[in-house]
Amino acid sequence: MAVVVTLDDKRRRGPSLEPLLALCAEDLAACNRAITERMTSSVALIPKLADHLVGAGGKRMRPLLTIAAAKLCGYKGHDHVKLATCVEFIHSATLLHDDVVDRSDLRRGKQAAHAVWGEKASVLVGDFLFTRAFELMVEVGSLEVLGILSNASSVIAEGEVLQLTAANDTAIGEATYLEIIRAKTAKLFSAAAEIAPVLAGRPAAERAALSAYGMNLGIAFQLVDDALDYGGTLARLGKAPGDDFREGKITLPVILAFLRGDATERDFWRRTMESVEQREGDLQHALSLLERHGTLHDTLERARHYGAVARDALGLFADGAVKHAMLEAVDFAIERAH
Amino acid sequence: MAVVVTLDDKRRRGPSLEPLLALCAEDLAACNRAITERMTSSVALIPKLADHLVGAGGKRMRPLLTIAAAKLCGYKGHDHVKLATCVEFIHSATLLHDDVVDRSDLRRGKQAAHAVWGEKASVLVGDFLFTRAFELMVEVGSLEVLGILSNASSVIAEGEVLQLTAANDTAIGEATYLEIIRAKTAKLFSAAAEIAPVLAGRPAAERAALSAYGMNLGIAFQLVDDALDYGGTLARLGKAPGDDFREGKITLPVILAFLRGDATERDFWRRTMESVEQREGDLQHALSLLERHGTLHDTLERARHYGAVARDALGLFADGAVKHAMLEAVDFAIERAH
Repeated sequence: MAVVVTLDDKRRRGPSLEPLLALCAEDLAACNRAITERMTSSVALIPKLADHLVGAGGKRMRPLLTIAAAKLCGYKGHDHVKLATCVEFIHSATLLHDDVVDRSDLRRGKQAAHAVWGEKASVLVGDFLFTRAFELMVEVGSLEVLGILSNASSVIAEGEVLQLTAANDTAIGEATYLEIIRAKTAKLFSAAAEIAPVLAGRPAAERAALSAYGMNLGIAFQLVDDALDYGGTLARLGKAPGDDFREGKITLPVILAFLRGDATERDFWRRTMESVEQREGDLQHALSLLERHGTLHDTLERARHYGAVARDALGLFADGAVKHAMLEAVDFAIERAH
Repeated sequence: MAVVVTLDDKRRRGPSLEPLLALCAEDLAACNRAITERMTSSVALIPKLADHLVGAGGKRMRPLLTIAAAKLCGYKGHDHVKLATCVEFIHSATLLHDDVVDRSDLRRGKQAAHAVWGEKASVLVGDFLFTRAFELMVEVGSLEVLGILSNASSVIAEGEVLQLTAANDTAIGEATYLEIIRAKTAKLFSAAAEIAPVLAGRPAAERAALSAYGMNLGIAFQLVDDALDYGGTLARLGKAPGDDFREGKITLPVILAFLRGDATERDFWRRTMESVEQREGDLQHALSLLERHGTLHDTLERARHYGAVARDALGLFADGAVKHAMLEAVDFAIERAH
């Protein structure tokens, strides 16, 4: 009887990240140790602030991708842990800078660093993490890996600037929004996965396949996050639902609702999201507009498309536990919305 | 009773391009006259060969997009007909060159030009059409339009080269294939739609919206064509079903079947599509593999995604007959597969 309940539980739980985390547990632990070691500095504020962010955990999705992809490629060395650390540092640096730009008060379920130590410290420690990431890459010594990660870093920076100039516009449109999340989120997912076959000396087709897997998984992930922000709970998100709305952060559900709405509705979105003049009941009204135009549903449909592309990208690789866990990670990215 | 039959017929027929063609009929006729006028040359072979291709008709999808987008933007002048002509010339030039590269024997249901007049003539008359397109643009005199169309032309050329170097590889992957069809097909759809708001002096958001409409419609169109090639009839396609297979032209249904197939299946695809060594019954076997892996279905699913994005891109524009007809054109692009 107990067994039956467990099976039911599993079925209810749906796809999970656990199998991939289990397969990569040892390397992820090594990566976590490297993160702590590499954050040491005689300037005391640096490890303190960096630990607040990096040490806090988070999903570690990007280093997980590097480690998983290295396993998928049969890589036998140790440099993938260094590169996974490097990828997490790049990610953390952009988070620190992003929070300053967005003035978001919560990050990974904790107070954002800039709210504790101030904006200047956040900017500079972000720079520190970023340069330390480059030191790690140089240690590994592959010019190709350096090329992929430095290109990704520059695309992320470009994406931040594009978002700064375009994202406070409810009429931004889906294409530009997609360009932003490709740059800001998906590009690092893509690079994190692509560096593994390079390290393992695998052929160009596998490199392209893992790059595509990361890119499409990253887009799907972000779109589901966008939808969850209007439908999730604090526990699931590590941030309060409706945060994007309260901060005037324009994401796909709102972009589609704006496009599909009438003049009155567009005025509402302009007031609440562009001018960020929000009143009691606005979030409820926003949710009813998203519902009326089916935009949470359609945002998840878009995510499903990218998920399907990510799954097919792994087709070239031989079947096995790592591949199955990476496929399940795609399903998890999509279905955690249900 | 007769009325009921007509309604049933309409319902059966599903979405159609007819409403858009009807709204644009006058301008399309003017465009067709301009096409004939601008093909005149004292070198007799030029109008003869160009007429074989351009005069033969075809769907005129691209000039239709320019004309429809101009109407959607409330453009009142006459230059949109010149630009529509220009867009069709660019398209025809690339078709002439493409047929030489592909050695395809049928085009728009007729013998391809190079099969009648030889390859050299096709290459050179293609160049002629291309330069005439630029003359037309220069007559219109908008540097912005010149920028959009010259960029599109260069992207198309890049796409051709990418296809030449990558497309004889069954392991090409979906991302690279998408890059190719974006460049080869969708970019000109996008440019054709984008030049209209520029001509009409409309704001940047409408320009971006029409560019996205064209791009996503173009991708959807090409993907449905890819699926139809394995499921359509000569009458529907203007070419024989299975042509892509016989020519070893690797498209998404095959790319997905390769990714999802086992080693024996991959050997089959390599033999038939890379080496183009085909035997009796190979096409039937290919169709059974596409069926087994559901790749025609999934190619249409991918197309549906791009269709949905194209539809939403028009959200900014006021409701009206032109907008509805442009939305129906998207549905037509997708549902002609059924």
